[in-house]
Order: sequence, then C-alpha cells, then structure tokens
Amino acid sequence: MTSPASVVLVFLDPAFPNGRLADASQPQLMATDQGATRGDGVFESMLAVGGAVRKLQAHLDRLGGSALAMDLDIPGQEQWRRAIETGVAEYRTQHPATTPAEDEVVVKLIVTRGTEGASSPTCWVQVSPVGAAGRRQRETGIDVILLDRGYDSDAAERAPWLLLGAKTLSYAVNMAALRHAHKQGADDVIFTSSDGRVLEGPTSTVLLAHLETSDDGTGGTRTVRRLVTPQLDSGILAGTSQEALFRAAAAAGWELGYGPLEPHDLLEADAVWLISSIRLLAPVNHIDGKEIGTPAVQKQLTAELNELFARIQ
Amino acid sequence: MTSPASVVLVFLDPAFPNGRLADASQPQLMATDQGATRGDGVFESMLAVGGAVRKLQAHLDRLGGSALAMDLDIPGQEQWRRAIETGVAEYRTQHPATTPAEDEVVVKLIVTRGTEGASSPTCWVQVSPVGAAGRRQRETGIDVILLDRGYDSDAAERAPWLLLGAKTLSYAVNMAALRHAHKQGADDVIFTSSDGRVLEGPTSTVLLAHLETSDDGTGGTRTVRRLVTPQLDSGILAGTSQEALFRAAAAAGWELGYGPLEPHDLLEADAVWLISSIRLLAPVNHIDGKEIGTPAVQKQLTAELNELFARIQ
Repeated sequence: MTSPASVVLVFLDPAFPNGRLADASQPQLMATDQGATRGDGVFESMLAVGGAVRKLQAHLDRLGGSALAMDLDIPGQEQWRRAIETGVAEYRTQHPATTPAEDEVVVKLIVTRGTEGASSPTCWVQVSPVGAAGRRQRETGIDVILLDRGYDSDAAERAPWLLLGAKTLSYAVNMAALRHAHKQGADDVIFTSSDGRVLEGPTSTVLLAHLETSDDGTGGTRTVRRLVTPQLDSGILAGTSQEALFRAAAAAGWELGYGPLEPHDLLEADAVWLISSIRLLAPVNHIDGKEIGTPAVQKQLTAELNELFARIQ
Repeated sequence: MTSPASVVLVFLDPAFPNGRLADASQPQLMATDQGATRGDGVFESMLAVGGAVRKLQAHLDRLGGSALAMDLDIPGQEQWRRAIETGVAEYRTQHPATTPAEDEVVVKLIVTRGTEGASSPTCWVQVSPVGAAGRRQRETGIDVILLDRGYDSDAAERAPWLLLGAKTLSYAVNMAALRHAHKQGADDVIFTSSDGRVLEGPTSTVLLAHLETSDDGTGGTRTVRRLVTPQLDSGILAGTSQEALFRAAAAAGWELGYGPLEPHDLLEADAVWLISSIRLLAPVNHIDGKEIGTPAVQKQLTAELNELFARIQ
C-alpha cells in the first residue's frame, strides 16, 4: 500500500523544463482524462537504487515503442530524463534513506491520451517506495498458477490493434488474473496462449534454467548452465530485465535459449523465475501445486543470477 | 470533442446523499488512482432525453455485473440514481436545451478501484453533450471493417479472468481498433473471433435483418422480418440497446434470432446496424468495402426500428 504522502509526482510540462512538481495528496488528473475513462495510455515501471534509475535507456526506448503502437506523440527522452531526475531528487530529499532497502524506489512513467480533443498527452513521473510484498517474494519465492491468456501465439503478428507488444494502461485483465491467483492461494500467474505456449506473467517475464552435464573433452565433465525465455514473437512484452540479465549471463558463461516453451518445459526445469524491474528475480517454488526443481539448486542459481543482475546499471 | 466547460461531474460520496458536485474544469482525480494507472474499473454510457435516462435499470444492472466480475464493491443503485438525478438536473440548469438535439445528453457512470489500498472505489457520474459525429452517423450510416479480436469464441467461458462480459475501463484495444479503421478510411469496426465468428463493435452491438417472403396460408404471401444478433456466450458484452430493441421488435411482429454468425451472414443480410446507447442505430453501408443490402430496404427498416427504439424508456 502506497500512501499519497510518500509519493512524488512530476508532470512533464513545456513551461517547466525540469518538470513540474505536483502535490500527490491532491487530485492532479482531470476526471475526463482518457487514461482514467478508457485505460488509454502507456507506462513504464523502473527501479532507482541510490538515486540512479536502472536500465533507464531501455525503459525510455520501450515507452517510445509503446507510444508509437498507440499513436501517442510523447515528449522526447531528454524531457523524461529531466523530470525523472527532479522526481528522484525530490523523493530523496523528502525521504532520506536510512537503510539499503529504503534506498530503492519505484519510478513510474505514465502517459495518457489526455482529455478528449487534447492537443498533447498527459505525462508524468511518479516516485514511490518499493512495496514490502515484492521485496519479500525475492527471498521466499512464489507459487504460481498457469492461466490461459485467450490469444493464440500468432495473434500479435496478424492483429497489431491488439497492442500485444505495448505496455498500455489497460491492465484490468492482468489485475484480474492476479486476483484469481490470490483467491486460489497462489502469488502470481504465468499466462499461456490458447495454443498452449508459455507467455509471460501479468507484470513480469518468465525465465527458466537447465543444468546439463557434458563431456569437457578431456575425460572430465563440465556443467552447462542454460537460461531460457519465451520467444518475443508470441505476443509478449519485451522484458527489459530479461534482456539485461541475458547479456550479463552470457558474459558469465551461461548459454541462452529462446522458446517456444510449453508448460512441461517449466515443470522439467531446474529453476524458474519471474523477473521484473521492481521485484527483480522471484524464484518460482510451485506451478499449479507442483514443485519446481530442487531447493538447493534453485537457491544457488538464484544467488548467482542475483549477483549478475545487481551489477546492471 | 467535449470541453470540460460543458461537463458536469457528480462524485458518489457518503457525506453527500445526492452526490457531490465537482468542477470538471479542475483536476478531480488522484494521479495514483488505479483507474488511471491500470484501467482498473468499470463504466456505463447512457443517453438521457428530456432529462430522463433511457434504460437506466438495465445499465445499473450491467454496471453491477461488471463490478462483480472485477471484485469491486460499489454503492447501491439508489445512490447511483440520486447522483445521476443531481448531475442531469445540474446540466440542464447550466445548459438549457433550445433544440431537441440539445435535449439529449450523455450520462457516464465510472468506477475505479481508487488509489492503492483504498477502502472503497472511486465512483462518479459524468454528464456531457452528445458528440456531433455519432448523431451524424445515425443519419448517414457508417463504413465498417472486420478485425480479429484475437480470442476464440470459447475463451469467455473457460477464462473468466479475461473479463470478456464486463465493461471495464481497459479500452485501449477498442480504441486502437477504431484508430486502425479510421486510418483505412472506415468509420467503425466489427470484431470477429479467431475462429471466425462475428462478435461486436468496439463500443456497440451488431444487429442484422433478413426479409423473408413466405406463403401466408391463404394463397398470398407475407414478409417475415427477422432481427438477428450474435449469441452472448461468444464472449461479447450484453447490449442493453439490443435487448430493449429485441423486446420492442418482437412485440411489433419481428422474429428474433441469435447467432453464431459468420462474416458471410453480414454480407448476405438485408441490413446491418451497430447499435449502442448514445449513437443508437447506425446503419452499416459497407463492410470491408462491400455494399450491404440495398439502400431502399435499409432506409425503410432503419426508420421502422428507430421508431420502435425511440419509444423505449
């Protein structure tokens, strides 16, 4: 739960080159804004650590891609960067961090189409604390259920109006899927396509790892670690965290793989994670009640990937 | 285009039994409201004529059903009725109608999940003028393209978390489909399922009519008029206008039919309409560039159905 008292808002506003700070405890949006009346807009969620937003360029690029898919003409990246700096600095002034956990903050970028007939979108940056639940789930891991996303894995390609690669504000289905999981005692969801492919979480990307023992060519054996994620053309969102981690893992000697993946691939993996920018790597303990991998291997691989991921700027 | 100056807002608020009037030219929503940040809420759009909202009970019932599907605990219908009365009366005071057209106003009911951790949803009534485009399209008719909605016609039944029967605020895909149509020179869209069934418009229900000449049993002939709409279990929204018109048409001697419908059924119909609460019956002139029915028959049937529909309270 994020109380408005701990939220900093910065609106992008041509009259304020560094963004316009606004009081988050007061209404700041028009009730007729199409973000509110139609979920008509796009967003990004990012993590700032010690005042620096991680993977900022990747998030700004994805925001631009989402806006393009929605025919939204948004401000340039330099304006976003300045508003983000203003927001993060203001947050750190208002809430000086006294623990490493408090030094992590959520930075959201939000764009709506504005009120009907508006000449430009409504754009703002929201800075708020990281929720306790996400932080806990990094440690304890999560239980997940598989839910059908309704689309087949060709839908994105043949029907761009479905906006499957864009991060839009229309998240009602994602939220309903999470509520459905919570009612069943699970923490999160992995969506599958109607033709049985593994897609993504409602707010995360799916990763799995395989350990393979092979001959090292000198009579001994070596362990190959392979990190796999669903292929993008199945209509999922390109994960900025998955991309960054894949680069780091490859540099550290992991092999990389891209789906198609089916549910049995998850069940047979040595470890499965949901990865996202705020919660980071959440190890998946159970899928539909079935234990995934072995605790010791999961723990070791999670520690290794967490270390790689922590170094990403 | 609806300027905030011509919008009346009434928030449902326990401290104001008849609703709390709010200035639509000022921000009234928290930027952290989950309606704005996640399209997380439900709505209804209704038409008031001469101060009376048409099909009010059906809309209140559908709002309740949508809220239930979204686990939203919304105020009772009596509170909505009072807020609607307040809003419509205020609008008529501020903007006395001088023409029959001005005596039609749009009444929207909007519910969002509120800010994160809020104990109750944010609920308001918005009263605004009817747009000129919709009014014009009732007269001139519309050109439509068919677009794939991505879901197969069983998705609603097997995956309730897709919220296919709920009228949620997450309308980004509906709006993207309309923009896609406009870029192709069309006015509107009829969605089809991935398995080839006719579904609905992004903001309307599909109707078609067939005229069939049959023996009247005395050696002469009679013309049977049949009004058909896609069946509800294909995952479409239950249309309040379609339901009301069906009752009126049955009373006037029409036969009624319910899908499954396929695109060829539209192309072979004597007339096709998109029906909705604000634009009412919009005759479809072309689908994917092909002319539908004959202008004379379409005109006559539209006039007849308009007359039936105008009498609905």
